[in-house]
Amino acid sequence: MDVNVAIRNTIRTIPDFPKPGIQFKDITPILENPVVSRAIVAEFVKLYHGVKVDAVAGVESRGFLFGLPLAMELNVPFIIVRKKGKLPAETVNFKYDLEYGSAEIEVHKGAIKKGMNVLVHDDLLATGGTAGAAAQLIEKEEGIVAGFSFLIELDDLKGREKLVRFDKPIISLVRYN
Amino acid sequence: MDVNVAIRNTIRTIPDFPKPGIQFKDITPILENPVVSRAIVAEFVKLYHGVKVDAVAGVESRGFLFGLPLAMELNVPFIIVRKKGKLPAETVNFKYDLEYGSAEIEVHKGAIKKGMNVLVHDDLLATGGTAGAAAQLIEKEEGIVAGFSFLIELDDLKGREKLVRFDKPIISLVRYN
Repeated sequence: MDVNVAIRNTIRTIPDFPKPGIQFKDITPILENPVVSRAIVAEFVKLYHGVKVDAVAGVESRGFLFGLPLAMELNVPFIIVRKKGKLPAETVNFKYDLEYGSAEIEVHKGAIKKGMNVLVHDDLLATGGTAGAAAQLIEKEEGIVAGFSFLIELDDLKGREKLVRFDKPIISLVRYN
Repeated sequence: MDVNVAIRNTIRTIPDFPKPGIQFKDITPILENPVVSRAIVAEFVKLYHGVKVDAVAGVESRGFLFGLPLAMELNVPFIIVRKKGKLPAETVNFKYDLEYGSAEIEVHKGAIKKGMNVLVHDDLLATGGTAGAAAQLIEKEEGIVAGFSFLIELDDLKGREKLVRFDKPIISLVRYN
């Protein structure tokens, strides 16, 4: 299966969500297709072959979807990155700027070990704010960013420019202009 | 592996989260253990052997974690149940009462087909409010509730009592008093 083609043929574009003018890439038809879903996990594993990955960090909440299967397939821990206030134990936080205002993400203290190579995973690379913040959180905990993995990248939003400074692979299965 | 024992030995209890007096069952150490995580998926598949499941519905956001791997393993669609306002296309909603106030969940219109046997999945069965609402949403869409699957059940909160009326298997891998 050509995963890129399969994703393009399965994904759905919803106009004007969450606000007018935005063409939202809806991945729910992919989740409803177990063959394409399994191919996505297999493709990430193939593309990250040879890259040292000690853990996968998935960003709430759509990063939870393929993050855990990917971690299980790589046989490494899955670390969840959540919005502030949702993790029950002691956390480490990272605050970052959004278009309007700011957001804060966190992981459990101790989840990222010193020197651990952590792959950041989310469904979508848009402006790169959240993925960049997750990467900075990894470095704050003395982990090493192993790379980035996304199902979809929206080129126009230039998120990649925020992530190149980590000098690691940035893999998006499908890119849209 | 005895999955029940593995979960009990891996899970972490966090006192007074999200409010004083609550002993929160933290599943993040399970996610950080790929061997236990894979055993959980395999156990659900084993326990649902012989039960007709046409789709798995996972409830935002921790229900996304094991929901998709379970659906992939069963080779059926994964349907995401989200809080109101987060799904991009046309939705069907179900409003339900909480201890204080109310909540509303929704699925995409058309995700649940008429006569489809849908397994409800979440990480935790507490009061049963959300799982019961997900089941009612399935029935509202003329689907059939195939059963319920949880990692953890808190017996004292009597969520099971809210779900027995669907007369389907309610499987929790670990139950706590």
